[in-house]
Amino acid sequence: MAYDSQNIFAKILRGEAPSFKIYEDDKTYAMMDIMPQTRGHLLILTKEGAETLLDLSVEGAQACVATAKKIAPAMLEVTKADGFIMSQFNNEIAGQTVYHVHFHLVPRYIGQTVERHARVKGDMEDIEALAKQIAAAIK
Amino acid sequence: MAYDSQNIFAKILRGEAPSFKIYEDDKTYAMMDIMPQTRGHLLILTKEGAETLLDLSVEGAQACVATAKKIAPAMLEVTKADGFIMSQFNNEIAGQTVYHVHFHLVPRYIGQTVERHARVKGDMEDIEALAKQIAAAIK
Repeated sequence: MAYDSQNIFAKILRGEAPSFKIYEDDKTYAMMDIMPQTRGHLLILTKEGAETLLDLSVEGAQACVATAKKIAPAMLEVTKADGFIMSQFNNEIAGQTVYHVHFHLVPRYIGQTVERHARVKGDMEDIEALAKQIAAAIK
Repeated sequence: MAYDSQNIFAKILRGEAPSFKIYEDDKTYAMMDIMPQTRGHLLILTKEGAETLLDLSVEGAQACVATAKKIAPAMLEVTKADGFIMSQFNNEIAGQTVYHVHFHLVPRYIGQTVERHARVKGDMEDIEALAKQIAAAIK
């Protein structure tokens, strides 16, 4: 499948669609997931036009995990989560909903279950506040 | 929590416990998961003594995804999977069962569900055969 430059994440990266941004560098863009599986669920996008991990350059993949390592401590500090999952889905059967490579960071809380992926919009005010707090907590 | 050098993955890396090895370089070690969630489920271990992504060096994390990119095409070629999930769990609440950083590559097949994580041993003969086939298919 050819990369579709009209996908929602490509639009966000071009500034054509809104997002709750947390962090950006030359190769990655981090923002809140607006259909969070748990409170504080965030996404790290590559800036490459790549559909899946197979299409992404090694450098692009390495930049995503470097960003994950940079922002995960801030996410945990702000959310007080008890752990987190980093995940990345390739193709529809694996849960991929947007065909632009992105890594999920999903906080996990003791005693709380996880919402299904990409189903229900979260509390936008809370998500906006979290984005600001996490951005401010990045070391 | 201090890193426990007696965990099963540390023992495998020291050659003190068996594994179905797929690939190894100076920073990573890839092998089959013997309690697979789907056929072909494999693991990429860091060689650092790190419990979670937070403890792992940036270089160590980047080496894991570079290895993922190297072996995922071989995994897909051998298993004929329709997609795959890359995931990495931090702390018990997030599903972490061994406190040594590892990335999962879980093939997904259209029409097939996923077993629960780390519950039931797979077919050892099939897993051994897959390890050899995937290792041979790495470009």
